Amino acid sequence: MSSSAVSTPLPASASDPAPTREDVFAAHLGGKLSTGLTTPLDDARDLAIAYTPGVADVSRAIAADPSLVSRYTWTSRLVAVVSDGTAVLGLGDIGPRASLPVMEGKSALFKAFGGLDSIPLVLDTTDVDEIVETLVRLRPSFGAVNLEDVSAPRCFELERRLVEALDCPVMHDDQHGTAIVLLAALRGACTVQGRELRDLRVVISGAGAAGVACARILLAAGATDVTVLDSRGILLPGRPGVAGEKASLAEVTNPRRLSGATAEALAGADVFVGLSSARLPEELLSLMAPGAFVFALSNPDPEVHPDVARRYASIVATGRSDFPNQINNVLAFPGVFRGALDAGARRITEAMKLAAADAIAAVALDDLAPDRIVPSPFDPRVAPAVSQAVSEAAQIDL
Amino acid sequence: MSSSAVSTPLPASASDPAPTREDVFAAHLGGKLSTGLTTPLDDARDLAIAYTPGVADVSRAIAADPSLVSRYTWTSRLVAVVSDGTAVLGLGDIGPRASLPVMEGKSALFKAFGGLDSIPLVLDTTDVDEIVETLVRLRPSFGAVNLEDVSAPRCFELERRLVEALDCPVMHDDQHGTAIVLLAALRGACTVQGRELRDLRVVISGAGAAGVACARILLAAGATDVTVLDSRGILLPGRPGVAGEKASLAEVTNPRRLSGATAEALAGADVFVGLSSARLPEELLSLMAPGAFVFALSNPDPEVHPDVARRYASIVATGRSDFPNQINNVLAFPGVFRGALDAGARRITEAMKLAAADAIAAVALDDLAPDRIVPSPFDPRVAPAVSQAVSEAAQIDL
Repeated sequence: MSSSAVSTPLPASASDPAPTREDVFAAHLGGKLSTGLTTPLDDARDLAIAYTPGVADVSRAIAADPSLVSRYTWTSRLVAVVSDGTAVLGLGDIGPRASLPVMEGKSALFKAFGGLDSIPLVLDTTDVDEIVETLVRLRPSFGAVNLEDVSAPRCFELERRLVEALDCPVMHDDQHGTAIVLLAALRGACTVQGRELRDLRVVISGAGAAGVACARILLAAGATDVTVLDSRGILLPGRPGVAGEKASLAEVTNPRRLSGATAEALAGADVFVGLSSARLPEELLSLMAPGAFVFALSNPDPEVHPDVARRYASIVATGRSDFPNQINNVLAFPGVFRGALDAGARRITEAMKLAAADAIAAVALDDLAPDRIVPSPFDPRVAPAVSQAVSEAAQIDL
Repeated sequence: MSSSAVSTPLPASASDPAPTREDVFAAHLGGKLSTGLTTPLDDARDLAIAYTPGVADVSRAIAADPSLVSRYTWTSRLVAVVSDGTAVLGLGDIGPRASLPVMEGKSALFKAFGGLDSIPLVLDTTDVDEIVETLVRLRPSFGAVNLEDVSAPRCFELERRLVEALDCPVMHDDQHGTAIVLLAALRGACTVQGRELRDLRVVISGAGAAGVACARILLAAGATDVTVLDSRGILLPGRPGVAGEKASLAEVTNPRRLSGATAEALAGADVFVGLSSARLPEELLSLMAPGAFVFALSNPDPEVHPDVARRYASIVATGRSDFPNQINNVLAFPGVFRGALDAGARRITEAMKLAAADAIAAVALDDLAPDRIVPSPFDPRVAPAVSQAVSEAAQIDL
């Protein structure tokens, strides 16, 4: 999820004291991950089973039938969290070493929420060719790749190339994880307010990894009027600075061919999706249509404070845990990868992403309300529901 | 450790039933490794500490001072077990996928015996340049590299190049782990029999990864008469087939400039070290000097059966757990890497390897006997003793 700066410790809930810097550094001493054994190694018999000579039988079996590698190694549930450290949280290009605590955290989330094993692989190169080549060489070592915190527009080419080169699920979570949860939230908001996605005028502020993927998933889900802003204004074919991914996005968005800046985009709009950390002044909010949805997703500083947004909007969401309606990628990626791996899927398709969003939205239905349009990140029903939906969508796709 | 074929399940001890193929495959279902969390992720406060927004403070600190990466990530205790699958056990070049169960086992041993975390990285390339390049790119992801089951002579160049390219401990265990434990065992045998290493005529059968490293460590430890055999006979400068690593080894071994085959080498020899899986006929054994040591280390089929060897030798060792004096790399590598990482060493030096051998030999002293020249692999004193000795040797070296 896009974020501008992330230094301010957040109160996690009204009852808990906010974690201090000391809490944070203490929890990170020695890192956040470990490896463990799933078979005992307590005596000579264990050693003869798990290592020599027993293991040779297993190696021989895989040599004879390579498909057995997923049965007899951990790769069938192992997600590599891969980053070059070029777009880490709101900190920007801080390099692979400094990105590692974030990637360890991500791997920990895969375990805690998806029951998947996961290792961070941070790369000391930002060259797309070299990253692809490196992961192709490492391909036998893992079962799936979660790309993380790779800067745009390189992330688009990198993901595309990896999907082509690797016969396993690959997903850039900053793009598609965000998009899946945004779509789920928007479905929840529509249900609460009795609106239809296809009738909404949607404005997305930000044309980076998350902005592009959010625009595309909304279109795939039936949205008809999506307008995207970058730092120079509304994306429009031919506008200076509209090239590459932005150019192809401009072709399928902005159906009314608006030009201008945020004010022109927001006039009469029903939905604002903030993914750029650009501040949204109150006077621009007032231009939106009545009953608008405002999703101010930058962390830790939303584009507009929820209390201000609520003066103009019927539903407000942020990326923060201390406000209602937290749009958090952890609702999606553990179940998405778990479902894809369980199904033995070779790709994460658009149908699987849409199924994931629908599954998240379905879990929220039980106690849907204007301040509960998505489930809590800690709702234990979410990951299994997403996993099952993704797995089923993968089966159809096969 | 060199081994010819490894299909026969071995009885692990007299009391345990031998593991069956079914036992082995059942234990390998889903692989042998998992990842775990060292900090909780149970609620929003945990999430705010281990992931966003808290983790950003840690990332920022590492960006400002990259040396903090070893303090705040798992890399300071993470060993990558790296293989291209070209010389796996006695199975040969079975490729990276089929090698993975062995590498998972090795990673499990690092955890169980050394308290180190470890991940297998198997590579779909056998090109030395590409392997070096790949590990250089991945360098920020781990703290040390255990090279495993890479074929000779590529393994010599690969290890040398990695030691140059990476600022972290790198060791090809098939070479140096074997060599360290062999030296420890030979020291134990010498102590039992009141012999001195420098007085012994040593014959090493095998000039692959293990044979070369064993010859070199024995010379470094004071041996004066080491003769090495490959499949074409005694290594001698200028002999056909003696090039590269073998040529430089021929320069410093075979001081009496013997030529010929095993019979010529063994005549009057005090020590036989089998690392080639070539059978050693009884009539050749009979050529050795009285009171000889026979270390028949091929797995699972020793070069000569221990019962036969004992007719001619005063001390017999094998690589097997069901005979006395098991020469097993697990006595060395967990403590070697643990000590190197604890010391923050950038290289594993000759002094550290010699210190490791001495530490293993010292643990054996307590109950030294002809059938107890090395400690049991499960002796809990070994890894801490090795680790401490290696760490101290690293400090001296700094």
